[in-house]
Amino acid sequence: MSYFQPHLDALRGYVPGLQPKRTDLVKLNTNECPYPPSPKVIEAIERAARNRLNRYPDPHAREFSQAASETFGVDPEWVVAFNGSDEALMLLVRACCGSEGLVTAPTPTYLLYRVLPEIHGCRFSERAYRADGDLPDDFCDGAKVSFVANPNSPTGHTVSPRRLLELAKGAKGLLVIDEAYADFAEENCIPLVADCERLVVSRTLSKAYALAGLRFGFVVCQPAVGATLRKMKDSYNCDALSIAGATAAIRDQEWLRENVRRMKATRDRIQRDLPPLGFRVTPSQSNFVWAQRDEPVKPIYDALAERGVYVRFLDYGPHGQGLRISVGTDAEVHRFFEELRQVA
Amino acid sequence: MSYFQPHLDALRGYVPGLQPKRTDLVKLNTNECPYPPSPKVIEAIERAARNRLNRYPDPHAREFSQAASETFGVDPEWVVAFNGSDEALMLLVRACCGSEGLVTAPTPTYLLYRVLPEIHGCRFSERAYRADGDLPDDFCDGAKVSFVANPNSPTGHTVSPRRLLELAKGAKGLLVIDEAYADFAEENCIPLVADCERLVVSRTLSKAYALAGLRFGFVVCQPAVGATLRKMKDSYNCDALSIAGATAAIRDQEWLRENVRRMKATRDRIQRDLPPLGFRVTPSQSNFVWAQRDEPVKPIYDALAERGVYVRFLDYGPHGQGLRISVGTDAEVHRFFEELRQVA
Repeated sequence: MSYFQPHLDALRGYVPGLQPKRTDLVKLNTNECPYPPSPKVIEAIERAARNRLNRYPDPHAREFSQAASETFGVDPEWVVAFNGSDEALMLLVRACCGSEGLVTAPTPTYLLYRVLPEIHGCRFSERAYRADGDLPDDFCDGAKVSFVANPNSPTGHTVSPRRLLELAKGAKGLLVIDEAYADFAEENCIPLVADCERLVVSRTLSKAYALAGLRFGFVVCQPAVGATLRKMKDSYNCDALSIAGATAAIRDQEWLRENVRRMKATRDRIQRDLPPLGFRVTPSQSNFVWAQRDEPVKPIYDALAERGVYVRFLDYGPHGQGLRISVGTDAEVHRFFEELRQVA
Repeated sequence: MSYFQPHLDALRGYVPGLQPKRTDLVKLNTNECPYPPSPKVIEAIERAARNRLNRYPDPHAREFSQAASETFGVDPEWVVAFNGSDEALMLLVRACCGSEGLVTAPTPTYLLYRVLPEIHGCRFSERAYRADGDLPDDFCDGAKVSFVANPNSPTGHTVSPRRLLELAKGAKGLLVIDEAYADFAEENCIPLVADCERLVVSRTLSKAYALAGLRFGFVVCQPAVGATLRKMKDSYNCDALSIAGATAAIRDQEWLRENVRRMKATRDRIQRDLPPLGFRVTPSQSNFVWAQRDEPVKPIYDALAERGVYVRFLDYGPHGQGLRISVGTDAEVHRFFEELRQVA
């Protein structure tokens, strides 16, 4: 198409995990929470739906920033709300990179980090995790933006916040820690944002808060970073319903803790029961388990899908392939193992 | 900031109309619908809120595309849903423009069209409306993307769809017709999209559908254009609640017609009652009226705001300044005229 930029012709885009409409499937492929969100979220959404939906929402989602500020112990100005954390990640690439700008990310990791620079039309370089799971010392070298999912997907492992701070302090560009799964982990980087302006943390309500349908994420960053993101984002990027729902969700930390507790217990069971079936698992600090074998696992993925059990098959070439199994309800995980025993 | 692109330092961003939290104000400044959305919209949102909000939404909002397809008589594939039409407009700039890409828009018009290339870091050129309200013949010359609000804001006037098709056919880039206010107009360009691949129409549910709080817009375009937009957009750009609400809204055309009928009647009254108070008005095909005087109108704007009546003051330098008055309820418009008589 002569009217689009040339780099877009070759673009394939990010392919999200399947979202089948059938509800009788066991869906363990996109790391959603298998439990419902807090009833207070539903109430807040219903209130917002009946209250002036004909009016534009607050462009700065201040109600949410205030609630997040109290929960995480940061200034409200340090919290910028987005229509899902994907929006924040794309905006960070656009803010930092012209066509020559370089984005780095480790491998294996969330595939979106390489798709964002492809869409934007700038450069990308992958820098593999070391064998011990740490990032290489040159991870941020030459980069305008570096992305680290921490805990990482698909492995579920973490790099220590202290190490990430060290990398950010040595970086010329921004180091973005995507903490989509941090609610399931022992440590996180939010307390370290104050120590380095180039350290940016993104969070989502799609996983532990059970609100994938709401599209709400946020960034914790120093004010100089936040000011640029606020100037660049769509004026009304978050709608009135999601602001209300997200605010209620972040205020109900008890509901979060209970969901996380249940999911961690199920996760531990998955980790325990996979090795006897011939899988290696990486100890996970997330709501999924990365299961590998010496032989190819795509046939197992296909056989499970045929039986109505969806997990995620991911192939990182020389960096390995495996099945990423989201933590479902105990009943779903029971069914998963039943089918797996038939096909593995 | 050394880590952001240089053009962003000077960026001021788009400044939306004031969104005061007080509800005792008369708010005629951001062209919202003064009436509530269809009750079917609220019901659909409540249903969606109670139904699997822990799951990701349909990345392609097919339920909405199907409904819009039936309403507008186009193929569902021609309808791409966005988190507000702002998202669509920005994505079109990003799709078509590298740093040397040129965006054109007329003046006076919606200020966002010049802010989008500023944010993206490409070029912008304004091409004034002719004295008769038509666009100049060279409007699209050299441009990768040209934006026309039709009906236009702040003037409320329209360029004929036939003329716009002629310009699109002569263009090298895309001609984007922003039909945010087309529900209030006599004609629109959706039927012409089939005649020219470079003609793209954007719509919003923020105005006539009374859903500014929902953030939902869509584009009608040929499949080659839509395919690129779908590859570039965030996977889940629209949330489950807004997809459900927007689908219900587009299916309730009767509610839309009744709201539009009431707002047009009020608009006609505003247009009739302003000239005796010393204002020139442009005949409006939208839900606002552009009121001008020979002398500066900023003092009138300030005096009205002090009395709790917000309209929009817009100054286009040599292209004139004025007050853009959104159509409110009859009671709001009554109050507006009461205060205006005190200060004008």
